[in-house]
Amino acid sequence: MSNDDAASGTARNRRRGEPTSYDVALRAGVSQSAVSRCYRLGASVAPKTRARIITAATELGYQPNALAQGLISGRSNVVAVLISNLTNLYYPEVLATLSQMLSDRDMRVLLFALRNESEVDQVLDQLWRHRVDGAIVAARLSDAQIRLFEKKNVALVLYNRVSDTEPAASICCDSATGEAQMVGRLLKAGHRRFGIIAGPDDSYVGEERRRAALACLAQAGIVDVPVARGEFSYESGGEAFRVLMAERAQYDALLCVNDVMALGAMDCAREEFGLAIPRDLSVVGFDGVDPAGWASYRLTSIRQPVSRMAEAAIETLIERIEDPDLSPERRMFSGQFITGRSARLDPA
Amino acid sequence: MSNDDAASGTARNRRRGEPTSYDVALRAGVSQSAVSRCYRLGASVAPKTRARIITAATELGYQPNALAQGLISGRSNVVAVLISNLTNLYYPEVLATLSQMLSDRDMRVLLFALRNESEVDQVLDQLWRHRVDGAIVAARLSDAQIRLFEKKNVALVLYNRVSDTEPAASICCDSATGEAQMVGRLLKAGHRRFGIIAGPDDSYVGEERRRAALACLAQAGIVDVPVARGEFSYESGGEAFRVLMAERAQYDALLCVNDVMALGAMDCAREEFGLAIPRDLSVVGFDGVDPAGWASYRLTSIRQPVSRMAEAAIETLIERIEDPDLSPERRMFSGQFITGRSARLDPA
Repeated sequence: MSNDDAASGTARNRRRGEPTSYDVALRAGVSQSAVSRCYRLGASVAPKTRARIITAATELGYQPNALAQGLISGRSNVVAVLISNLTNLYYPEVLATLSQMLSDRDMRVLLFALRNESEVDQVLDQLWRHRVDGAIVAARLSDAQIRLFEKKNVALVLYNRVSDTEPAASICCDSATGEAQMVGRLLKAGHRRFGIIAGPDDSYVGEERRRAALACLAQAGIVDVPVARGEFSYESGGEAFRVLMAERAQYDALLCVNDVMALGAMDCAREEFGLAIPRDLSVVGFDGVDPAGWASYRLTSIRQPVSRMAEAAIETLIERIEDPDLSPERRMFSGQFITGRSARLDPA
Repeated sequence: MSNDDAASGTARNRRRGEPTSYDVALRAGVSQSAVSRCYRLGASVAPKTRARIITAATELGYQPNALAQGLISGRSNVVAVLISNLTNLYYPEVLATLSQMLSDRDMRVLLFALRNESEVDQVLDQLWRHRVDGAIVAARLSDAQIRLFEKKNVALVLYNRVSDTEPAASICCDSATGEAQMVGRLLKAGHRRFGIIAGPDDSYVGEERRRAALACLAQAGIVDVPVARGEFSYESGGEAFRVLMAERAQYDALLCVNDVMALGAMDCAREEFGLAIPRDLSVVGFDGVDPAGWASYRLTSIRQPVSRMAEAAIETLIERIEDPDLSPERRMFSGQFITGRSARLDPA
């Protein structure tokens, strides 16, 4: 099997009755290897020859085989996207944006939807086998796993998480500054009794936001802050709120590390505890998902700039695919403060 | 380049410094072709030989190259999933379920997220180039496009749509029966003045539900039914409700072809028109998305059996990959009636 066969997938195409690179070469009056070179990234073909090949290929309906092309160019034009919590309302937006932006660059998403972040281990083997050009990973990776990407020559961009111990490119929304801004606004408005609804302890983003909130409160001398953990879902937001209410009779403000739990907590506070929001309790979230803006909620939150972050992730990934020796860059984007109606932000 | 080289991606692996099928063969004391056969679907290897190969491969950290394997087995173990409206809350659930179920079968999702259903044309070319084994398509396909899948030897399963003119396998939630059941319950409870919030006219599912609702109402002698179209989004549900209210002062019941528009209409009805739901107006949806069950809405709806449908789509697709000549099957699943609190279902 010659490289040219691989480039056109000749054997398989013959079986399928589709035109092969040989047919194109014959029609264009060029060599078969010129046809392969024409469809290979970075290979040189004289402009005139290229034009003849493209014309012949179009007339015959010839499709170069992406699988086989990958073997030669070393590029599959496929990018793995690893995300957990696909149904968590925030990530579908990220995934749609990534997929459409990659598609505009003639690249595709190979999706790895994890049930939780700890599932990464089980999918990495599959990822190596598919020889993707790169991966955008919105799940927790160990240092050893990050080094594996380098070893396997798969470009890596971390999405909304940073490795502090291993150099790796990353795109983040600045959770710490966002939480600090939020806590600052709430403190200024006179809130003193805080509760926190955190995420699962294997969530990078959830833990970052929880720690940032606690640090800001501690700086203001507020150290007795009950924390309940949820699973980022609506139901778990309500459950966590019940846990907090069992711990202390009254709160001024409830900090939720994502929007969807905040919505669950709001509904629970209103329906089960008869609280008016924000009169009796301020509730704030993080992410800026669509439902947070719905009239029943109008949640005060920090919106992640999803489009800018997705664009940055793709740019960074492509740079790293093209030059694996590039020193890794961390890009950090500020979130946008959304003044909803779920929190009292003026001094009482 | 021999088949065995292709199976192990020898040349590229050597460049990467990774173990090749040759290294595994040497260590296991078998031929290189036995190693390739061992990693090829449907090829026969003696159990003892297989055990020796797997042991050697594990010791060496050998990874068969999925790209190159695809060239030989004719299988890439990659399935394209075409969906539009990824952020429409219902489809993320479908996608997560499909992706996890395929992953359990060691298959992967190549994602094509369309901005709208009419975008299919532009992505099909990319789809052929990636030589996927099959495709699950939740977007509108023309007869010519359905025939192209057959011509290109890519197994096809339509998701939530049916071709009436071209044989094609399909998995559907029974929208017509669901709508009939919903309209029947509302009629029985005494509702007479209906309005419909429909979807975009290029949506298969939206149009099916709109037609089914109108047909049921017509059968009951109700023919004057204002219809406004939305884009499946929350905002467009509110806008469509305003359009309906401009057309007629009062409605007994509002039929929405998806849940998210129903939520937008509910909020708009309550906030802008001061209507109490369901006292002044019954509102019903379709899909059974998570937010429809949230305490602020508790929407009466028809829930699609997402897990069963995803499982069926994958089963059907794998059957068709393994036997392309199988006569296409249509599988239709009934939705589950969700008695929320947004509609009056008892006779007044």
